[in-house]
Amino acid sequence: MNEIELVEWIRKQAASLKRPELVLGIGDDCAIWHPHPGEDLLFKTDPLIEGVHFSSAMPAAAAGARALARSLSDIAAMGGEPRFCLVSLTLGPHHDEAWLKYFFLGLLKLARRTNTVLAGGDLSRSKHETRAEVMVCGGVPRRRALYREGAGVGDGIFVSGRLGRAWDRPIQPRIALGVQLRDVASSCMDLSDGLSLDLLRLCKASRVGAKITRVPIAKGSTLERALHGGEDYELLFTLPPGSRPLPGTSRIGTIVQGDAVEFKGKPLAPRGYDHFATSESPSNKK
Amino acid sequence: MNEIELVEWIRKQAASLKRPELVLGIGDDCAIWHPHPGEDLLFKTDPLIEGVHFSSAMPAAAAGARALARSLSDIAAMGGEPRFCLVSLTLGPHHDEAWLKYFFLGLLKLARRTNTVLAGGDLSRSKHETRAEVMVCGGVPRRRALYREGAGVGDGIFVSGRLGRAWDRPIQPRIALGVQLRDVASSCMDLSDGLSLDLLRLCKASRVGAKITRVPIAKGSTLERALHGGEDYELLFTLPPGSRPLPGTSRIGTIVQGDAVEFKGKPLAPRGYDHFATSESPSNKK
Repeated sequence: MNEIELVEWIRKQAASLKRPELVLGIGDDCAIWHPHPGEDLLFKTDPLIEGVHFSSAMPAAAAGARALARSLSDIAAMGGEPRFCLVSLTLGPHHDEAWLKYFFLGLLKLARRTNTVLAGGDLSRSKHETRAEVMVCGGVPRRRALYREGAGVGDGIFVSGRLGRAWDRPIQPRIALGVQLRDVASSCMDLSDGLSLDLLRLCKASRVGAKITRVPIAKGSTLERALHGGEDYELLFTLPPGSRPLPGTSRIGTIVQGDAVEFKGKPLAPRGYDHFATSESPSNKK
Repeated sequence: MNEIELVEWIRKQAASLKRPELVLGIGDDCAIWHPHPGEDLLFKTDPLIEGVHFSSAMPAAAAGARALARSLSDIAAMGGEPRFCLVSLTLGPHHDEAWLKYFFLGLLKLARRTNTVLAGGDLSRSKHETRAEVMVCGGVPRRRALYREGAGVGDGIFVSGRLGRAWDRPIQPRIALGVQLRDVASSCMDLSDGLSLDLLRLCKASRVGAKITRVPIAKGSTLERALHGGEDYELLFTLPPGSRPLPGTSRIGTIVQGDAVEFKGKPLAPRGYDHFATSESPSNKK
């Protein structure tokens, strides 16, 4: 198949999911979206790179779902609901046309489940690695998005799920939880680079410190990985004192004055993943 | 500099351009955009790949401008005005931190000139090539976007500028022309893969044929390159019979019944660039 035929194949697969706001989808110079009045739009783009975010051997459908799920997780972290996505796929020498098709089938399965319409994108080839760039647009009622900023002294610190899971497991973007949190959380973000680094980011944005007392560790994982491993895609959020606990979430600590982040009374140095550091930097030793 | 410091440096450079619709820019999980009521939004993402769309030796600022200009050209082709962009940059081994900074300075210079605010993105490193993915959002009054579809029999076929220019010249996205065309053109697209292939696409979308009689050739170029070379980033559009010519544009032919595309009475086979074909395919011999 050439580029035109592949795009047409993808367009047909994507056509079963429609949204009235999508005025024009795949096939012209741009996609056209007519926004709901009174809605703020959220935008996030995230790359999925062979050898970094997935292994060459990962099934294509799993890689496709993962590529979309990474950006959906950021939409969830701001309390948003997915609207549409653009997918730019570059196919490297380890993967063929069949792989590309299964990649899109996997991506579109998650897209249908989360009501995310595929509105456009780009296809190309590379002599090196396979790589997908997925841009997701989400919607949130006006001025209701959750920020990293906003955690107050005395707030409880929570995470969804359990941390430190293997990096190739399927990601479940916490969209329903994010929507619930819009009404109650003082701050929120998703855990993509490791709890120690991401919690420091939330504390910096909110100009507070944190005392962590416990962390829910995934089955078969370790405390070390739960604290510093990346790619969890769970939500990290804070609730004002006296808030009711939410099912599927665990309290891990309390927001305090200052700027220090502590685990069981000792400083918790960030060792999460710095995507821009060289692999030799201390922060990238997983 | 680590990732956080580089993002902060970029954020500061980008801060001189503000738009009231950008509720939240670089720094949180997503960017937040509050759309104008009554406006349709246009979305386009386009990769700029080292060795494909620019050479390693191209000055960084020129590569940055080119990365943005490619997507802006698609916004212009639908009659839109730029609103914001997301930039995902992967730095390969041929380029360093200084290159990255000049890349963003070049991109931001064009962004300011076109009122495109930088709302977010991503930074990463690769062992292979440098690569930028730029997503641009544009705005257009509701239901006023220009499509490839819409050319009618008897319409004149026009292009802006002159075709076949060297692929490393700066791209001038035809935004002002696109806005003018909203009121008069029956169809429009941008020329990125070569006139012969792109005109065929416009004709297919509009279910018509075309007779081309002349093509404005750029100084130092050839008819062959003007017909089949890609990366022109000029606008290709049709005007109903009797329309007034627009400054800086040339009539190249007429829309006819059927589905054939002819140049001076002979079939004009598409030989533009198929991004997904292997370099051996006939359509990719430039």
